[in-house]
Amino acid sequence: MTRSNKKMSKTARLIPGALVYVGEKKTEKVRITIIDYNETQFQEKEVKTIEECFPFKETPTVTWINIDGIHDVALIEKVGKQFDLHPLVLEDILNTEQRPKYEDFESHVFIVLKMIMFDENKNDISSEQVSLLLGANFVISFQETEGDVFEPVRDRLRNAKGRIRKMGADFLAYALLDTIIDSYYLILEKMGEKIEEMGEELMSNPTPKTLQAIHNLKRDTILLRKSVWPLREVINSLGRGEPKLIKKTTHIFLRDAYDHAVQVIDTIETFRDIVSGMLDIYLSSVSNRMNEVMKLLTIFAVIFIPLTFMTGIYGMNFKFMPELDWKWGYFTLLGVMAVVVIVMLCYFKKKKWI
Amino acid sequence: MTRSNKKMSKTARLIPGALVYVGEKKTEKVRITIIDYNETQFQEKEVKTIEECFPFKETPTVTWINIDGIHDVALIEKVGKQFDLHPLVLEDILNTEQRPKYEDFESHVFIVLKMIMFDENKNDISSEQVSLLLGANFVISFQETEGDVFEPVRDRLRNAKGRIRKMGADFLAYALLDTIIDSYYLILEKMGEKIEEMGEELMSNPTPKTLQAIHNLKRDTILLRKSVWPLREVINSLGRGEPKLIKKTTHIFLRDAYDHAVQVIDTIETFRDIVSGMLDIYLSSVSNRMNEVMKLLTIFAVIFIPLTFMTGIYGMNFKFMPELDWKWGYFTLLGVMAVVVIVMLCYFKKKKWI
Amino acid sequence: MTRSNKKMSKTARLIPGALVYVGEKKTEKVRITIIDYNETQFQEKEVKTIEECFPFKETPTVTWINIDGIHDVALIEKVGKQFDLHPLVLEDILNTEQRPKYEDFESHVFIVLKMIMFDENKNDISSEQVSLLLGANFVISFQETEGDVFEPVRDRLRNAKGRIRKMGADFLAYALLDTIIDSYYLILEKMGEKIEEMGEELMSNPTPKTLQAIHNLKRDTILLRKSVWPLREVINSLGRGEPKLIKKTTHIFLRDAYDHAVQVIDTIETFRDIVSGMLDIYLSSVSNRMNEVMKLLTIFAVIFIPLTFMTGIYGMNFKFMPELDWKWGYFTLLGVMAVVVIVMLCYFKKKKWI
Amino acid sequence: MTRSNKKMSKTARLIPGALVYVGEKKTEKVRITIIDYNETQFQEKEVKTIEECFPFKETPTVTWINIDGIHDVALIEKVGKQFDLHPLVLEDILNTEQRPKYEDFESHVFIVLKMIMFDENKNDISSEQVSLLLGANFVISFQETEGDVFEPVRDRLRNAKGRIRKMGADFLAYALLDTIIDSYYLILEKMGEKIEEMGEELMSNPTPKTLQAIHNLKRDTILLRKSVWPLREVINSLGRGEPKLIKKTTHIFLRDAYDHAVQVIDTIETFRDIVSGMLDIYLSSVSNRMNEVMKLLTIFAVIFIPLTFMTGIYGMNFKFMPELDWKWGYFTLLGVMAVVVIVMLCYFKKKKWI
Amino acid sequence: MTRSNKKMSKTARLIPGALVYVGEKKTEKVRITIIDYNETQFQEKEVKTIEECFPFKETPTVTWINIDGIHDVALIEKVGKQFDLHPLVLEDILNTEQRPKYEDFESHVFIVLKMIMFDENKNDISSEQVSLLLGANFVISFQETEGDVFEPVRDRLRNAKGRIRKMGADFLAYALLDTIIDSYYLILEKMGEKIEEMGEELMSNPTPKTLQAIHNLKRDTILLRKSVWPLREVINSLGRGEPKLIKKTTHIFLRDAYDHAVQVIDTIETFRDIVSGMLDIYLSSVSNRMNEVMKLLTIFAVIFIPLTFMTGIYGMNFKFMPELDWKWGYFTLLGVMAVVVIVMLCYFKKKKWI
Repeated sequence: MTRSNKKMSKTARLIPGALVYVGEKKTEKVRITIIDYNETQFQEKEVKTIEECFPFKETPTVTWINIDGIHDVALIEKVGKQFDLHPLVLEDILNTEQRPKYEDFESHVFIVLKMIMFDENKNDISSEQVSLLLGANFVISFQETEGDVFEPVRDRLRNAKGRIRKMGADFLAYALLDTIIDSYYLILEKMGEKIEEMGEELMSNPTPKTLQAIHNLKRDTILLRKSVWPLREVINSLGRGEPKLIKKTTHIFLRDAYDHAVQVIDTIETFRDIVSGMLDIYLSSVSNRMNEVMKLLTIFAVIFIPLTFMTGIYGMNFKFMPELDWKWGYFTLLGVMAVVVIVMLCYFKKKKWI
Repeated sequence: MTRSNKKMSKTARLIPGALVYVGEKKTEKVRITIIDYNETQFQEKEVKTIEECFPFKETPTVTWINIDGIHDVALIEKVGKQFDLHPLVLEDILNTEQRPKYEDFESHVFIVLKMIMFDENKNDISSEQVSLLLGANFVISFQETEGDVFEPVRDRLRNAKGRIRKMGADFLAYALLDTIIDSYYLILEKMGEKIEEMGEELMSNPTPKTLQAIHNLKRDTILLRKSVWPLREVINSLGRGEPKLIKKTTHIFLRDAYDHAVQVIDTIETFRDIVSGMLDIYLSSVSNRMNEVMKLLTIFAVIFIPLTFMTGIYGMNFKFMPELDWKWGYFTLLGVMAVVVIVMLCYFKKKKWI
Repeated sequence: MTRSNKKMSKTARLIPGALVYVGEKKTEKVRITIIDYNETQFQEKEVKTIEECFPFKETPTVTWINIDGIHDVALIEKVGKQFDLHPLVLEDILNTEQRPKYEDFESHVFIVLKMIMFDENKNDISSEQVSLLLGANFVISFQETEGDVFEPVRDRLRNAKGRIRKMGADFLAYALLDTIIDSYYLILEKMGEKIEEMGEELMSNPTPKTLQAIHNLKRDTILLRKSVWPLREVINSLGRGEPKLIKKTTHIFLRDAYDHAVQVIDTIETFRDIVSGMLDIYLSSVSNRMNEVMKLLTIFAVIFIPLTFMTGIYGMNFKFMPELDWKWGYFTLLGVMAVVVIVMLCYFKKKKWI
Repeated sequence: MTRSNKKMSKTARLIPGALVYVGEKKTEKVRITIIDYNETQFQEKEVKTIEECFPFKETPTVTWINIDGIHDVALIEKVGKQFDLHPLVLEDILNTEQRPKYEDFESHVFIVLKMIMFDENKNDISSEQVSLLLGANFVISFQETEGDVFEPVRDRLRNAKGRIRKMGADFLAYALLDTIIDSYYLILEKMGEKIEEMGEELMSNPTPKTLQAIHNLKRDTILLRKSVWPLREVINSLGRGEPKLIKKTTHIFLRDAYDHAVQVIDTIETFRDIVSGMLDIYLSSVSNRMNEVMKLLTIFAVIFIPLTFMTGIYGMNFKFMPELDWKWGYFTLLGVMAVVVIVMLCYFKKKKWI
Repeated sequence: MTRSNKKMSKTARLIPGALVYVGEKKTEKVRITIIDYNETQFQEKEVKTIEECFPFKETPTVTWINIDGIHDVALIEKVGKQFDLHPLVLEDILNTEQRPKYEDFESHVFIVLKMIMFDENKNDISSEQVSLLLGANFVISFQETEGDVFEPVRDRLRNAKGRIRKMGADFLAYALLDTIIDSYYLILEKMGEKIEEMGEELMSNPTPKTLQAIHNLKRDTILLRKSVWPLREVINSLGRGEPKLIKKTTHIFLRDAYDHAVQVIDTIETFRDIVSGMLDIYLSSVSNRMNEVMKLLTIFAVIFIPLTFMTGIYGMNFKFMPELDWKWGYFTLLGVMAVVVIVMLCYFKKKKWI
């Protein structure tokens, strides 16, 4: 929560038209890698300055420039100048609180996405904004930090696996989109495991912590949903061929990615239903336990209260109490008590309490 | 859950463009059957290799190739090559986690469906993906395992019952679709029986297990719903004549199938409402029982606590307690106690507790 | 539930293209009545065989053929042949689990409706399917059993009341539709009365049976809703003049019927809201009673537990207990007890428990 | 409820085409008033018979005929004949259970509305149907009973305030519509006050009556909502200029009225949210009180049960019980008891129960 | 609540066409400031009378007239006359209960907005209506009171930062809109902080006050939502270029503002989900505490009730009770009691109650 809100207030102080990085302060060097390829040749290198990338803009080969770290505002501005980007695009790249969307400027298409990763240490999910800039023969990807889910795409490019090397920049953009959607499946898998654990815990020993965990899970599904719902719309629009930069041969692939996005949403909705059901079961198991406690109390009270009353009777000090003088008085009473107990136990048995 | 998640992670590692079977590992031989017919002739045989099917592609008769088992990726690839299928179609056939959809490629229509079966042993429902490939004069159906609901269609083909032998491949595709929808009715019937049992159990003896069973039922309705909702849309689109391969005479039949799908959805929604109502009744009956327990406890406590107090009074050892010396003190006290009990009982009677 | 499910499984075994009656087995004779009229003449008779009806098809007068009982499949097939009906229409007539819909075949319009009747004996509502077949100058109505709500229409035809005798078959179809909608008002009235009774019971003496009754009521509203919602759409489409058989002068009447259907839906929604509110009140009154029980228990326990403790003190057999020897010890203690009781009562008074 | 249902059953027995008044029987005389005006002249009078109104139909001035009481069916029929109204319009005027709607007949527009009034005596809201008939230069308004919210409009007409006297009959119809919407604000104000009272009662002393009152409030919001939602649609359609009788200059005023209707709906929705929140608070405060009761019981029981046990120990009559003979045995025990009490109290203090 | 309702009743008494200020009575002087600029020149001054503003209307420079205080109806009327505004626009400016909307009059566009501010003193949010009037080369803004969120815009104008001085009045209007949306982020930040505090309080020590606070938070989200939802639509329409006064270069900026509005709505929805989850946790923690209380009571009762019964047995005064005469009777009994206690404790241990 906190981190997210801090960002918001920074955004609030933003001046439209002035570029300000919105996010945690960072001092690491921005890492820039270039992959340049066509069907026959392939080149991959890491560059020091963004200027080294600019010559690739003119070549007919497809160029993928990946920028890890967007806190260097000057660098982003240089890219903006070189590739003739609208100032609002630069602002959107820097504002890491965007929701997934795309914007079509004849000469380039700008796409904002959320990459969601599972942090094994914190046992929680975290999200990172990825901005894609698709031009005629280049793709520029902006990430918040190093480390991403794009390795399979790089491998395919390196090994010329599948059709990717034969196709244009739009297919590369699709491949990146698709890889991100695929990575959501991993998150869903993790969540599915958590849900299962939770379900077992719920049956064996539900505690208030379980409730808290269920609510955290619910919050995670909400977060995931917020990332995927708009993404679905983005892919749908791209697949309907709205931006001219996306070629017709890529449409069917985007429709396939769209199907995957819908599948992810479906699974999220199912998780939400299951998690809601868990809340019901939790509440009901709590009230069930209370019931059990009450039954135990009642069984003891109902059996012993009359017995104790009887002992009270014969503990009185009245001068004239004939039973006290009977020889078998004491044992008779014990017998009566035993009968009472048996009757009570039968009653509870009939009621299925014991 | 588990099984479903395992699949997901496999999908996540998929490389777009490379065919990988997504599902449980299987080693059984894939079973291929061919039914070839027109109005006058009919032929049905099981073949060893997929190549034996290819000649039928050219004949003017309608050919139905049924493939049980999709774990043999090489086989699927051969089909793809022979029938000129888009790579993504092959991927979709192998990815058994698809949601129902259809894809129109001028020369063929690709339809994904869910076949839902009730497993009497596990007393649970299981779902299997069926892919249909409709060409000008052939239908290819891909199933995950042997055993399906298509026997009535085969019977009609064998016996030339109804109009099926007189019509084209699109009508065969419709017949298969319709048979799957009809099979949902069987599932609904099973669920209806379960709901009824549950309802009686709920009245007679609700336990936490009942709650769990209600939630399982709810989950089943969700699963069914996820299969039928998109199917409805698929049939609607087919019935509106979007793919040209579907002839006009088949439209009215598809509209009829659409009506059935809507009817299934209606019944599912009704089941959901009933199951939700059951949850309410369960919770209320639990709190009602607690009430009953509390009442019993209170009746005993309220009657005996004052009586025990009285015995306590006369069990004290004060030197000077005039009542102790009265001749009829003891019996007077017993009388007073009886009066107290009667008053209490009248009070509870008035409150309708007993 | 049961009856409905039985039907479903029968449907599931249906072979598309083969006519099978879906519903309870019946052996009664099918009853066929004909009403033939125009502005000047009127004829009403009951016929033995369906063939007697066929000559009326050619006359210019409007003919209303009413068929009570659809279990005679052969008869339905004859009608189908004579009036040139699509096989799926015949199937729909026989399948009594249809949802309201209409189907436009140039030469005739097929409408499926639900007639809902209140069974005074069972104190429950039951629904029956009515199929209307509207041709150029005839209407054929198919009902499951004898007994319907169409008597007012017959009366108007007999007495030439209103405009009905002057208008065509489409107006007759409208009149039948409208009569069915009007009959829903009667059901709503019955439900309104039940809701009121329930509301009073809820205030005076809520029991688990009340809860069950509320849920039955809720189920009835769901059933009614399922019949009326699609009906609304049917009437809307008819009123927008989609089938050409419906003349323009009838449109305004259909729009009026549409308004009534919307009114019925509105009332149903209100009933649902009220019934939901009743569930809340029930649950709250149950927890309120528990509260009352607890208060009673607590008052008794809190008053008598300290008193009993005091008697325990002076019931001990210590050799040296000075109070026991005081002359007024006993009465002092009784006084102390009285003070304790008064203090307690004041406390409870202040808390508004008594 | 009851009254509304009575009406329904009457409607159910209605014969389409025959005029029957639906509503409470009344015997009062129908009151007819005429206001006739143009920019320069103004005339207001009460007439005895409806026939006196007919000459005004032909004059070029705008005429507003207001009819209080619609139980005189003959009168309504005369109006219908004179102004050439469709029979269904007359039926709608008499059927006081209509939902807001409008019907456009080239020569006149028929509008049905709900006027909602707060009855100070019953402390409840009641609704009355108002039908407006807008012609080229006349407006006829039909009300169920005398007494309405139109006085401000009459005042403006009399005093020639604002633009109303300069504009046509369509502006008059708008003014009447707008006045009705304005009157909803008064109802909302009353409801707002009630909600506030309720909120305070909820905090200070919630009783089952409070719950009942909250539910009544909820029912009122539902009733109001049912009147305003369709009205919104009516005004929207009128404002989009669908009926030709509404002139372009009036459109902007209707759009303004539309904004007001939306504002009313917004407030109703807010009230619904608040009332739902109140239900939550009620339920929670009830369970909170139960908690408090339980705590009190538990404190007393947990403190005194062990003490009473101790007195029980030394009340036993064993021959050999050394403690009984100790000189300070009694006082030692009292000391031990005091320690137990203190320990308990500290425990409860730590738990924040006391 | 109260204040809002007071306003409503005033609105209700409004006469359409007559201007009445709706809001709290105020006597302060209305403050009018003018900013007049183009790319090269800039002028900012405060004027005494509205007439001083009128000459600016004719100049080709962009003029922003800001009016703080709308209770001076005469002033508003003068503006209306001078700028040729529709009377309903003036009414809307004065009616501070408008929902966000825009109205396009060829020569000017009228926009109503809600400015939401966080009052640190009251620790609550308050809302103020802002009306914008956009003409060819002027913007007039009407605010209820002094103090606004527009300072950043003024700064940019003064310092000629960004593109704002180079662009027309439509960009100024956009800048004002955008600043208001940005200010919502600040409110969201405050609410996020509150939610976090609440979440911690919920875990550590939930009281009925916490519940009240959660409900207040919920009400705030509702209020915010009511302001932002319609605003989103307004901006969307403006951005689609519906009013001709908005130039094409501004569209992309409005689309950006639209994205921000959607982001705000997303966050509000997330807050609502979290707050709903909090209610669940609150209710569950209350019932959990009750459970704990019950357990304590039950542990004590179940342990001591049988022990006390035993002491009662040997406190009886029967003549013949052999155990009483045993030498080790007393200690044997104490041993038996110890065993009972140990057994009980083990039982509770096993049940995880202690």
